[in-house]
Amino acid sequence: MSFHTDPEAAARSQFGGLIASGWHVGGIFMRLFADHYLTTVASLASPGLDELRWNAPVRPGDRLRLRTTTVETRLSRSKPDRGLVKTKAELINQHDAVPATIVAVNFIARRPR
Amino acid sequence: MSFHTDPEAAARSQFGGLIASGWHVGGIFMRLFADHYLTTVASLASPGLDELRWNAPVRPGDRLRLRTTTVETRLSRSKPDRGLVKTKAELINQHDAVPATIVAVNFIARRPR
Repeated sequence: MSFHTDPEAAARSQFGGLIASGWHVGGIFMRLFADHYLTTVASLASPGLDELRWNAPVRPGDRLRLRTTTVETRLSRSKPDRGLVKTKAELINQHDAVPATIVAVNFIARRPR
Repeated sequence: MSFHTDPEAAARSQFGGLIASGWHVGGIFMRLFADHYLTTVASLASPGLDELRWNAPVRPGDRLRLRTTTVETRLSRSKPDRGLVKTKAELINQHDAVPATIVAVNFIARRPR
């Protein structure tokens, strides 16, 4: 969409200026989530996302931080070495607005018994 | 994760070789979805995804195609110029397996009345 890449077209668009694409925002989420969460736990893989919402535009110069809340944990039914953890992730900007929320699902290794 | 970028570490991993990251697969989905679907309709924006599932690995050399199924349509409650369309998208590989499915939500312009 031209409002992601063309400043003049973006100025005329419903957003009034350039905004990041949703997948660009997803990439920012994943960088923060990987660096500050997944690499500090025994992450094995992910079966997907339960939900992704782009609630408000991300604009040039915005500063985003990540807040995570664990919303569900359960043991894997098929693989006894791991559990499934669902995490609500919120990207928060410098105005304390929340332009994106994601419910991520991850397989995390259990402690050896 | 090193199984996305390091062939030797990937060979020793649970996946037995390099696999594309989930967000890489998301980018492939979006390229196909934008080029062959969104740009042929009056797409206005997207509030997000209802679900994203990475069901099986995508490996180097795989060829992916996209199948879309419209699963829900309704008029916007707040904006009479548009409707909301939910689309189930399946990425299908050269073996007819489905490594990823996505339920995308899009605002599509209505015909003028």
